[in-house]
Amino acid sequence: MGGDHGPRVTVPASIDFLSVRPDVDLLLVGQPEPLARELARQARPERLDVVDAPEVVGMDEDVRSAIRNKKRSSMRVAIDLVKEGRAQACVSAGNTGALMGTAKFVLKTLPGIDRPAICAVLPTRTGQVYMLDLGANADCTPEHLLQFAIMGATLVRSLEGKARPTVGLLNIGSEEIKGNEVVKKAGELLRASPLNFHGNVEGDDIYKGTTDVIVCDGFVGNVALKTSEGLAKMLGDFLKEEYTRGVFSKVAAAISWPVIRRFRERVDHRRYNGAALVGLRGVVVKSHGSADRLAFATALARADSEVRHGLLERIGEEIARLNAATPSAATP
Amino acid sequence: MGGDHGPRVTVPASIDFLSVRPDVDLLLVGQPEPLARELARQARPERLDVVDAPEVVGMDEDVRSAIRNKKRSSMRVAIDLVKEGRAQACVSAGNTGALMGTAKFVLKTLPGIDRPAICAVLPTRTGQVYMLDLGANADCTPEHLLQFAIMGATLVRSLEGKARPTVGLLNIGSEEIKGNEVVKKAGELLRASPLNFHGNVEGDDIYKGTTDVIVCDGFVGNVALKTSEGLAKMLGDFLKEEYTRGVFSKVAAAISWPVIRRFRERVDHRRYNGAALVGLRGVVVKSHGSADRLAFATALARADSEVRHGLLERIGEEIARLNAATPSAATP
Repeated sequence: MGGDHGPRVTVPASIDFLSVRPDVDLLLVGQPEPLARELARQARPERLDVVDAPEVVGMDEDVRSAIRNKKRSSMRVAIDLVKEGRAQACVSAGNTGALMGTAKFVLKTLPGIDRPAICAVLPTRTGQVYMLDLGANADCTPEHLLQFAIMGATLVRSLEGKARPTVGLLNIGSEEIKGNEVVKKAGELLRASPLNFHGNVEGDDIYKGTTDVIVCDGFVGNVALKTSEGLAKMLGDFLKEEYTRGVFSKVAAAISWPVIRRFRERVDHRRYNGAALVGLRGVVVKSHGSADRLAFATALARADSEVRHGLLERIGEEIARLNAATPSAATP
Repeated sequence: MGGDHGPRVTVPASIDFLSVRPDVDLLLVGQPEPLARELARQARPERLDVVDAPEVVGMDEDVRSAIRNKKRSSMRVAIDLVKEGRAQACVSAGNTGALMGTAKFVLKTLPGIDRPAICAVLPTRTGQVYMLDLGANADCTPEHLLQFAIMGATLVRSLEGKARPTVGLLNIGSEEIKGNEVVKKAGELLRASPLNFHGNVEGDDIYKGTTDVIVCDGFVGNVALKTSEGLAKMLGDFLKEEYTRGVFSKVAAAISWPVIRRFRERVDHRRYNGAALVGLRGVVVKSHGSADRLAFATALARADSEVRHGLLERIGEEIARLNAATPSAATP
């Protein structure tokens, strides 16, 4: 029950989520006192239990020491619940590195997957795109990028019901000869794979919606994601400043309010909250640390959707199918 | 005289530029007929001459073959003019790879610089930031990144008059242990250098204006830049769509027009057009291919400013000064 706002956000979001999912039980994992205090303020539904986890992992804490020493942190206890089969998924708004590290350590990766990746959904001109890796793996091999592509395509096929999702390889030009050595080699592997590989895509293709999936290493993906967050924030701030500069602008803002509200809803990042940690033997979803009630409920719904669609089994099947087609590529 | 729009944009932009810079002469390099046709439609100023360059390099042409075979292309002739000292700078809206390749081939790099880089100015929350490399070098060593930092800091010191520009290293976390191997090693070199090194910055720091300079390899920089272009375009399109959806929205748009215009001016990419190809023995500026009249005139002004501020000499001095301080780092 971490994140910037703690139980004040996660508890109401959990109750919202339960109200639309009558067949789900939720376990709130964390320090009992803050959870009890927040639950006392709400109309507590029956399908919600508290699991005691007295230790706290700070946002700046060393990941390795947290994994080793904090066996009763909320993150560790929640992932242990998944491992033991007492929970089907774990959702956390805590430290990304600690969550990924703990999940890898406890759950291990799926057969045929060397490295789990962080996969988020981003809005595009024409719908949405699944992009991975967004920061779990700063250094990747071509084989890792192929595995990310397989997992991304399986996510889209399973969750969106698209039979042949298109996969783009993030690069700095559309020609095959473009890019660094890892990306060029990854392009060869992707072209040889049975995936519906579109070819190279560039940064602006993310928001054009050129493909259903975009694959990149975690360094590039993280920079692209955070650059987008920073630019959207700056543009939003500038627009707000201009609309509050003097009486005339404020009147214009009041008149424009329905238009601005529609625009904001269309690009509302809260509707895209919840990144999948894919490639693990368990469903783990990372919520943005600053998530509010609506955003955290979205992350819960995403985890629920992955479980309902049997994502783990589907990835396993897909890896097996692709290994049969290209035996040397997916498991080097 | 390339780019998407050719002389129709570059000629009027040149005339605009000359009208505010009475001490500059311009040479228009390109096919004489289209240039003459466009010049006939304008009030042609005296300080403007045409240099014949009959060959054309296409946007999709192989860079190496263009450099080797097209010695009378406008790009090659313009850079030759810089080499011969008949021009002090070259501005082009043509193919970036061909421009960089030709410039490297003809002009060579400055002493102590292994690789030229593409450096653009981006708007930030608090002003602007110089970011490099934006696509010239997909694979970089830590030493290359240090050289980019030296050049970026010299650009800011020379052109903006800041005595000690701050330099940020683009990474996926603020801690020193974050990132891939190249970036970690580059961080060590930057900490050991006499530069005013801020430390790691993340994608969202670009638009926050955390530092005066941001350094990254050309792969990451190109993705960040193009991702920004794509996101800004999508948000602009969405805003436009919402403001034209029905009569009420159009009335709101009309009333909001002065506000929207101020907002657009504030983030107008045309005011930031013109990326410096730094590290060469000559001033070369790349305009966006889709530049309009105002944008292309901005690129001309940027080249003019680099020449006036003696940028090449300043970079040379700075490299010599830093080599004296850290002999092993800047020239490996």
